Amino acid sequence: MYRSARNLQLFSAALSNPRSSILRNICPAPGLPHSPLRMASSESFRIERDTFGELRVPSDKYYGAQTVRSTMNFKIGGASERMPIQVIKAFGILKKAAAEVNKDYGLDTKIADAVILAADEVAAGKLDDHFPLVVWQTGSGTQTNMNVNEVISNRAIEILGGRLGSKDPVHPNDQHTHHSNDTFPTAMHIAAAKEVHEVLLPGLQTLHDALAAKAEQFKDIIKIGRTHTQDAVPLSLGQEFGGYVQQVKYSIERVKAAMPRVYELAAGGTAVGTGLNTRIGFAEKVADKVAALTGLPFITAANKFEALAAHDALVELSGALNTVSVSMMKIANDIRFLGSGPRSGLGELILPENEPGSSIMPGKVNPTQCEAMTMVAAQVMGNHVAVTVGGSNGHFELNVFKPMIIKNVLNSARLLGDASVSFTNNCVSGIEANTERINKLMNESLMLVTALNPHIGYDKAAAIAKTAHKEGWTLKATAVKLGFLTEEQFEQWVRPHDMLGPK
Amino acid sequence: MYRSARNLQLFSAALSNPRSSILRNICPAPGLPHSPLRMASSESFRIERDTFGELRVPSDKYYGAQTVRSTMNFKIGGASERMPIQVIKAFGILKKAAAEVNKDYGLDTKIADAVILAADEVAAGKLDDHFPLVVWQTGSGTQTNMNVNEVISNRAIEILGGRLGSKDPVHPNDQHTHHSNDTFPTAMHIAAAKEVHEVLLPGLQTLHDALAAKAEQFKDIIKIGRTHTQDAVPLSLGQEFGGYVQQVKYSIERVKAAMPRVYELAAGGTAVGTGLNTRIGFAEKVADKVAALTGLPFITAANKFEALAAHDALVELSGALNTVSVSMMKIANDIRFLGSGPRSGLGELILPENEPGSSIMPGKVNPTQCEAMTMVAAQVMGNHVAVTVGGSNGHFELNVFKPMIIKNVLNSARLLGDASVSFTNNCVSGIEANTERINKLMNESLMLVTALNPHIGYDKAAAIAKTAHKEGWTLKATAVKLGFLTEEQFEQWVRPHDMLGPK
Amino acid sequence: MYRSARNLQLFSAALSNPRSSILRNICPAPGLPHSPLRMASSESFRIERDTFGELRVPSDKYYGAQTVRSTMNFKIGGASERMPIQVIKAFGILKKAAAEVNKDYGLDTKIADAVILAADEVAAGKLDDHFPLVVWQTGSGTQTNMNVNEVISNRAIEILGGRLGSKDPVHPNDQHTHHSNDTFPTAMHIAAAKEVHEVLLPGLQTLHDALAAKAEQFKDIIKIGRTHTQDAVPLSLGQEFGGYVQQVKYSIERVKAAMPRVYELAAGGTAVGTGLNTRIGFAEKVADKVAALTGLPFITAANKFEALAAHDALVELSGALNTVSVSMMKIANDIRFLGSGPRSGLGELILPENEPGSSIMPGKVNPTQCEAMTMVAAQVMGNHVAVTVGGSNGHFELNVFKPMIIKNVLNSARLLGDASVSFTNNCVSGIEANTERINKLMNESLMLVTALNPHIGYDKAAAIAKTAHKEGWTLKATAVKLGFLTEEQFEQWVRPHDMLGPK
Amino acid sequence: MYRSARNLQLFSAALSNPRSSILRNICPAPGLPHSPLRMASSESFRIERDTFGELRVPSDKYYGAQTVRSTMNFKIGGASERMPIQVIKAFGILKKAAAEVNKDYGLDTKIADAVILAADEVAAGKLDDHFPLVVWQTGSGTQTNMNVNEVISNRAIEILGGRLGSKDPVHPNDQHTHHSNDTFPTAMHIAAAKEVHEVLLPGLQTLHDALAAKAEQFKDIIKIGRTHTQDAVPLSLGQEFGGYVQQVKYSIERVKAAMPRVYELAAGGTAVGTGLNTRIGFAEKVADKVAALTGLPFITAANKFEALAAHDALVELSGALNTVSVSMMKIANDIRFLGSGPRSGLGELILPENEPGSSIMPGKVNPTQCEAMTMVAAQVMGNHVAVTVGGSNGHFELNVFKPMIIKNVLNSARLLGDASVSFTNNCVSGIEANTERINKLMNESLMLVTALNPHIGYDKAAAIAKTAHKEGWTLKATAVKLGFLTEEQFEQWVRPHDMLGPK
Repeated sequence: MYRSARNLQLFSAALSNPRSSILRNICPAPGLPHSPLRMASSESFRIERDTFGELRVPSDKYYGAQTVRSTMNFKIGGASERMPIQVIKAFGILKKAAAEVNKDYGLDTKIADAVILAADEVAAGKLDDHFPLVVWQTGSGTQTNMNVNEVISNRAIEILGGRLGSKDPVHPNDQHTHHSNDTFPTAMHIAAAKEVHEVLLPGLQTLHDALAAKAEQFKDIIKIGRTHTQDAVPLSLGQEFGGYVQQVKYSIERVKAAMPRVYELAAGGTAVGTGLNTRIGFAEKVADKVAALTGLPFITAANKFEALAAHDALVELSGALNTVSVSMMKIANDIRFLGSGPRSGLGELILPENEPGSSIMPGKVNPTQCEAMTMVAAQVMGNHVAVTVGGSNGHFELNVFKPMIIKNVLNSARLLGDASVSFTNNCVSGIEANTERINKLMNESLMLVTALNPHIGYDKAAAIAKTAHKEGWTLKATAVKLGFLTEEQFEQWVRPHDMLGPK
Repeated sequence: MYRSARNLQLFSAALSNPRSSILRNICPAPGLPHSPLRMASSESFRIERDTFGELRVPSDKYYGAQTVRSTMNFKIGGASERMPIQVIKAFGILKKAAAEVNKDYGLDTKIADAVILAADEVAAGKLDDHFPLVVWQTGSGTQTNMNVNEVISNRAIEILGGRLGSKDPVHPNDQHTHHSNDTFPTAMHIAAAKEVHEVLLPGLQTLHDALAAKAEQFKDIIKIGRTHTQDAVPLSLGQEFGGYVQQVKYSIERVKAAMPRVYELAAGGTAVGTGLNTRIGFAEKVADKVAALTGLPFITAANKFEALAAHDALVELSGALNTVSVSMMKIANDIRFLGSGPRSGLGELILPENEPGSSIMPGKVNPTQCEAMTMVAAQVMGNHVAVTVGGSNGHFELNVFKPMIIKNVLNSARLLGDASVSFTNNCVSGIEANTERINKLMNESLMLVTALNPHIGYDKAAAIAKTAHKEGWTLKATAVKLGFLTEEQFEQWVRPHDMLGPK
Repeated sequence: MYRSARNLQLFSAALSNPRSSILRNICPAPGLPHSPLRMASSESFRIERDTFGELRVPSDKYYGAQTVRSTMNFKIGGASERMPIQVIKAFGILKKAAAEVNKDYGLDTKIADAVILAADEVAAGKLDDHFPLVVWQTGSGTQTNMNVNEVISNRAIEILGGRLGSKDPVHPNDQHTHHSNDTFPTAMHIAAAKEVHEVLLPGLQTLHDALAAKAEQFKDIIKIGRTHTQDAVPLSLGQEFGGYVQQVKYSIERVKAAMPRVYELAAGGTAVGTGLNTRIGFAEKVADKVAALTGLPFITAANKFEALAAHDALVELSGALNTVSVSMMKIANDIRFLGSGPRSGLGELILPENEPGSSIMPGKVNPTQCEAMTMVAAQVMGNHVAVTVGGSNGHFELNVFKPMIIKNVLNSARLLGDASVSFTNNCVSGIEANTERINKLMNESLMLVTALNPHIGYDKAAAIAKTAHKEGWTLKATAVKLGFLTEEQFEQWVRPHDMLGPK
Repeated sequence: MYRSARNLQLFSAALSNPRSSILRNICPAPGLPHSPLRMASSESFRIERDTFGELRVPSDKYYGAQTVRSTMNFKIGGASERMPIQVIKAFGILKKAAAEVNKDYGLDTKIADAVILAADEVAAGKLDDHFPLVVWQTGSGTQTNMNVNEVISNRAIEILGGRLGSKDPVHPNDQHTHHSNDTFPTAMHIAAAKEVHEVLLPGLQTLHDALAAKAEQFKDIIKIGRTHTQDAVPLSLGQEFGGYVQQVKYSIERVKAAMPRVYELAAGGTAVGTGLNTRIGFAEKVADKVAALTGLPFITAANKFEALAAHDALVELSGALNTVSVSMMKIANDIRFLGSGPRSGLGELILPENEPGSSIMPGKVNPTQCEAMTMVAAQVMGNHVAVTVGGSNGHFELNVFKPMIIKNVLNSARLLGDASVSFTNNCVSGIEANTERINKLMNESLMLVTALNPHIGYDKAAAIAKTAHKEGWTLKATAVKLGFLTEEQFEQWVRPHDMLGPK
């Protein structure tokens, strides 16, 4: 028996007479499928009430009065500005974890199981259409927390055979120890960590591997290097791609280096970080449960005050994503320039063709994947500034830029992860070297003259280059004409392959 | 006379035997409503073909192969990352304008009218579900241009009694003079200008007027000023709000000052800005038509090369929005701090209560509207950096960050406009002054001592303030106790009302 | 006769016995030159005193205790972080203007003239070594205001034959109506406006004119266009440069469009914007004097509360500078890519060579001016974010990010102006077209095939392009080989010159 | 044996007849002190020559023609925009390390020792006045590399008894293996790492310790919490400061987490990353020497291509600094608001008074240190965007935003480090709690009513709060008047001390 309402988590009111068996109700009631519902205009309503008066709630929705109230108060941005569904799902995980902990603490099993089931459905994305709120709401995310509570409460009520909106036997407001001030930041961290692990890191790994394969494939292709966008001494195309590989490898390391602090969960801090109204051990147990449910090493935050009042951990993660975006911009820019042409560009790479439209112009393969990637990179840089500004403007015990911060972090992680996969599959994996062009540029290059310095001295080498440049000749022809060396010597001394490393 | 089908604008092929009357077909075919369609999984498909092979196109969609191809190539971000619908609608306006111009130039009337009708439906938002592409595509927006062409083409075909996907009698590819390189930036400017006029400026005006009304309402309430967050000399609450009014007034001016360059349309520049394959006058005529259709003073761009290769005009507009966001951050921050309390804050303003949840704590009215506004401000600052980065990275004849740039500009304009209205209706209009608290702080203030300087000198005034501060006394009591002046003199000399302006 | 100390502006105390004639003292005392002094370790000191105790002031410095105190309290960043000298000079102008107004109001002529003379020396940069304070001080700039007051006071004392540090006959603290809260923002606007007019706009105009001359010079050179970094239809090099000209032309317009609000001066707002302790008309008269002294159309701010509490006008100006930087990045990037080579790049432009070091590699002209310009552009974008963050974080009656904001605005204006001149003189003016290369690329281009569409149809044109691309042939050769047209027809139909505009 | 002069590192030409003993020349020649020299106008010149003609070099300067040439070509920003001296010193370390390695490889001992001595003087800051170049130069920092080479060369020549400008016996141009493309990024990393270790981390640690001491000092002071800027449930002032402590602790961790990649040195990559013209092992040996000279764990970069072409490591470090700035903004903001007053603010903290000027208004202690810190924070956020933009715009084998990137990173590190110390010494260490005020706010708070929920239920508790708020009564008085409990019960149940943690 659960002794004190004070100790109940969330939708946890200890009810004496649950009127229905859970088992009978784990399937949706007929006519109210919990599989994806449209947001379409519901035509029937139930009347709910809050302290401000009556509200009409669509009868096919699990949310309640507070959610409807929020949609009325925050008409900002429309449907595309909804709270990211990853946050909702993270809430599902958190609420499930909390219910499990509370069950351990003595919460009525039937109630707990219904709540767990409902929370699980939220986590699984089965109730996505029940979360209409936008990001631009209260800065603590309270209204989304209430939206989740209302949905889980009503769904649990339904499972238990009750009536939607009755708040019986599971009251959405019994959340004294499930204050949005600590649940929302917890959901933020869960959502961010999952997005990083499920989308971003796999995406970066995919890109890494494809680039590494290309570096291997191109390792014997020697090409002209370019510094200051100007011709320089040679390197292999494999070495050039090796630089990209390193960037992506470090991208992965950077993101991982930011994660330890993201794994810290605020849950248990309640309203101001003190943990008022929780039990000792609650914070740790919830973190353990979340870790178990997600397979990620979540722990309870070392300092709950910091965890509520600041979002430095997400600013840090956003900083890592910003660095990743910088790498991506470099790589995608290089590839589109190296693939420029077909005849008036650098033309060293042949990029795969993915779309028609340039059909009249074969070889004019617009580097659309590079463009998508660089646009994503620019967006991530912008998102990072938004996160930075929001992160810096917390006051006292609570940062109230939470929804905005997590929206941007999730957007950056998702875009970078998705774009990495798209870029890999539709561009990198299909890149071929235009060896004919590469060789031509190599052989015409004046920079190879530097290989002659040790043999004929700087001054003669320079004279060769100057003459070749002025006359439009090759180095070899010029060298021979100037009488500085023989053709054989030139071929012996000017070996690009010998210029690829220290001796 | 319109000589060649290849020169026709867009879906304009001059057909000899249109097989059906337009009049008979302006209503949607049975079973294919053009009223909002769900994106839901269509279960029947038609087969279309492009140069890469066969594609399955949902049979209830007007878009075609190129759109489907793009959805396969750019799986980045999902549905929330779709091309803003305002861009699609702007395309509707542009395509309608172009068809009208082409009709004047001799395009077959039936064809033209069908295209105009279809474009009009796009502009009116009737075909919103036929635009599934995300922002993260080719950086010129070509694929969205093709999406629009396919939809208008097929809808026009339908109107003319043809078969979807047949490209007959309106071919989506006949767009040599309707190159995405100039249509997309044109749609960007139309969309931005409309959003500014329809959402942002009205929103700012609403906020301006509400603040001005408050400034008037509060003009006789004298309060303590605060500089460095510290007590300072008094001003009226009306003056304080007057500062906000000025900020919003100038916000409006700033946005308007950026518009002349946004009104410039790239249409007619075609692929690189030269206007190759258009007729002389086409650019001007299209701009005129767009101006007529929108009621906004659009003109043809003074320099089409700049209009394709750069998006400085939108960077500039974004800069204006950034400045607006700075103003909003200041105003919303001030209001939440002035309304802080109920007992341990500044408590000078009483903010309207919009949500329950603080029901146990009357007077703890969380400034949720301020929070939404400040989150929006942070987002706009971030969006601006994304726009800046994108705007700076154009190359040669084309900037290829177009979809990203317009997405962020529209987002900023919409969020600021919507948030201004929400902030006004749910916060500003309901703000009341807590005159009791304001008077108490005023009367307790030590800063009023500055009014004594001319009468008793700086040193004695300072002595009064120091003693009052040390002892926790009022200034008047201290002044009298120290024997520097009488109570009557104090009341005569220390009149906050006389401190509100120069003499 | 000046009646009341309260009404004296600044260092204005009406002294009974000026001990020395101004005329005798307008030259520096022997041994204390006011011409540029080193900041070097002074070895002799005078002792001054403030409420915190004694301080040692270098005896050859005009500043006093408050300045020394600030150097002790704000050891942040060192000498390179000093308050920009432009702010100091602007203060000189403002203090001179204020003294002139006060003279009109009755300030003792000798005092006034000495102050005016001293202020003029500050404005003229003669006392630059007397301003050691860094930007990172109080956010209102109060300490720099005091630094200026101390310097002008002591220099005026010296002129009047008094003793440095004596505060007699010109007291640095008599500044009740010259509150730093309104003087510092006034100096900010004066400094910004002057930098814009003296450095930025002339720099941009210089660049504009040079680009315009190049556009004219290159107007008949037809070249391949590039979109998506890929070959596209032709345009003239003059048209390409014409796009840059337009960007710079609009850069100038953008900056000018931001100036009206920069011309508004806060002076007269005093501590919180009310103008407490000024006379009616003071604000307007000071603005008039500043306008007369600078030749710029300064006016008194429409709303002094806004002028103290926000710096939206400078955020707006910074936004204009940000847009300029975006244009500069585009132009400089294009030029370095078009000048890339000498053999493995695009090679269409020949950039002037300014430095040795690439002597061995003739033709490898590193585009160092482009690099300086693009680095400046990046810096300006960063500065703009700093300004934005600072501008958004004002509270109540005062924004206290003033020194940081003006530092960044001035830095951006100076860097863009200087870099424009450097870029013009050392790069743009000397750019030559590599017509041989340009023609070669043009003639090899496959994109010219589009000119055949109206003559032989899209399908045959595409076939020609495909074959040419595959075989590495020219279009003409391919067309003839395929039997689609004669050599004569090719030459008649494929005329790049006809592709530069609409028909 | 060192085979070829051309292969010598830097100023390493193996000279046959050194005309003077090193020992005799390690002291400066009379009249040419190498102790700090002024940049003042030199009046005598020596004539040097480069491929562009003659140049006048100040005769008291060690730099040469290439440096003078750069000052003529890059008149951008003036003296305050000089290359950060930390970069110059880092070059000193690198050049010393390289000379030591080359000595091991067989470089003539006398030459090597003179170079080592000269490089050491550069590293020690003894030659600071010989580095006049600005940041806004070539984007590879080549000109600063040459400036360093010229100074070390000439100073070594002087040590060896030669004539300045003679390039004999130490030629500044013999730097084929000391290409600026790898030396400059190496100096960037050395400079950044040293600044982090010498300024930033000690500064953060100082702040951390002071905050921790305050957290301990304030641990028993219970105060009202604030969320949404509104009154909330209590916490201890120690807990509140504990949140700040955690932020600074993590700031330190974040910076450290970014360092591993900063410790990677590009030296040995030469022109494009291949290491052309270096010996195998050179890169590793130089890194070892630099590590030994600095005591920091530098290693040779894992991938030299990445190390030249990208500066992700510094973007990452800048991201860490950005996160630190976010923490600083929060902490400094909180402290100024908690210290706001003296009578009309929150007034919970008493901040130390550091400056006069508020003397008339005792208790009005302007939080100037908070203001300096928040300005620094804003600057760091801006610097970070500049670094991000620069980092993202590298092309091919070289990023050419190097000087700008390092300038901003060093500026951010220095400002944060210095400001942390200033903030600690002049603010944090002297903060006292205004316990009287804190207790008053605590006891008046309505939020304590939440402690009654478990005892009398939510509804009655809410009724108490509402009535107390409406009537302006205390909770206790209201509770008793409403008859819900006795005074004793109130005192027993409402114990703020019991509300500071879970139970």
